[in-house]
Amino acid sequence: MTTSIGWEPQNPRMFARALPYATRHASTAVAFRGCACAAVRDNLRATAIAMEAPVATDDYYFDDLRVGMRFESGSHTITEAEIKAFAAAFDPQPFHLDDERARGTLFGGLAASGWHTAAITMRLMVDLGIPAGGLIGTGCEVSWPRPTRPGDTLRVFSEVLEITPSRSRNDRGTAVIRSETRNQNDEVVQQLTAKMVAFKRPRA
Amino acid sequence: MTTSIGWEPQNPRMFARALPYATRHASTAVAFRGCACAAVRDNLRATAIAMEAPVATDDYYFDDLRVGMRFESGSHTITEAEIKAFAAAFDPQPFHLDDERARGTLFGGLAASGWHTAAITMRLMVDLGIPAGGLIGTGCEVSWPRPTRPGDTLRVFSEVLEITPSRSRNDRGTAVIRSETRNQNDEVVQQLTAKMVAFKRPRA
Repeated sequence: MTTSIGWEPQNPRMFARALPYATRHASTAVAFRGCACAAVRDNLRATAIAMEAPVATDDYYFDDLRVGMRFESGSHTITEAEIKAFAAAFDPQPFHLDDERARGTLFGGLAASGWHTAAITMRLMVDLGIPAGGLIGTGCEVSWPRPTRPGDTLRVFSEVLEITPSRSRNDRGTAVIRSETRNQNDEVVQQLTAKMVAFKRPRA
Repeated sequence: MTTSIGWEPQNPRMFARALPYATRHASTAVAFRGCACAAVRDNLRATAIAMEAPVATDDYYFDDLRVGMRFESGSHTITEAEIKAFAAAFDPQPFHLDDERARGTLFGGLAASGWHTAAITMRLMVDLGIPAGGLIGTGCEVSWPRPTRPGDTLRVFSEVLEITPSRSRNDRGTAVIRSETRNQNDEVVQQLTAKMVAFKRPRA
């Protein structure tokens, strides 16, 4: 059994976006207006216009987070080849590998591994911009209310639920972020509530 | 940016095991003695001896699960190349991509994406044997108490915490399975508590 995951080669411009975030949906513009940090906002806008690698938003700190802030990612359309390649490496079960055999299963047809949906979600979040110190989760709850199918276009909608300064370490805090990964029909394929590390802006 | 994930090619026998599970550790033998289903046990033993693809244990049903049952997976040694390849595709942050740049971060050196650890955990669980209908999680809690490092040898230790028949569907139930992914020093790199679908044995 020899497989490789051809991720980028299959769609090298997968994370490039045709339109700036802020103009694509009215709701996005609202989300950005809610963002206290102009530099982050500008970085994310620039990112949205023409990028294929994530941008480190080194001026985005714990201090800049507010409960209720919302973020919307770019999108990725998942292919059948990607689903099968990821599954062959990490989750080799019939319903992730073979459309014919998938029909007689709970999924009723080829579906992506939940861990594949989670990995794509992470990529879409990272591509939105990496905060100072990194986008680092210490733990999360994740559920997959419906399958991700070949051809689905995924997008991640995140909201800051809680921000808590660390009691023991002055330089950081935690943020609880809820992220929904939705397909092109606005159906939720993954719900993720993650506890993230967030670093405070260093004092001059 | 062009990357591909060379998973199998880097280590084509990564999931082959030199020894049967039941003889490798005394604790494993205990776990198997706790397993009520002889066919599953035999399948898993056969699997352990010589396999490179997962085996469907179609005689392993909801009916065979018991609270307290334990399972131990085979192992996988993760390489630096695997860590970087997964990260390039799904989690392109400096501490997952570049050892030098990783040193100044929270991780203090190159570390695998948590989603990579999760994906390897899934693969190790699938390779242990797929129950009838598949190894299907509807949701889970996951945490990463310490990083997975290049060269770490990972192994998964699972225990059945709860089994609950479905109220609405006669043919299935759910099982809550807690799985610890440990490195070669027996340190826990991931804790996973997953709610799984389990199908009942069809009535003749």
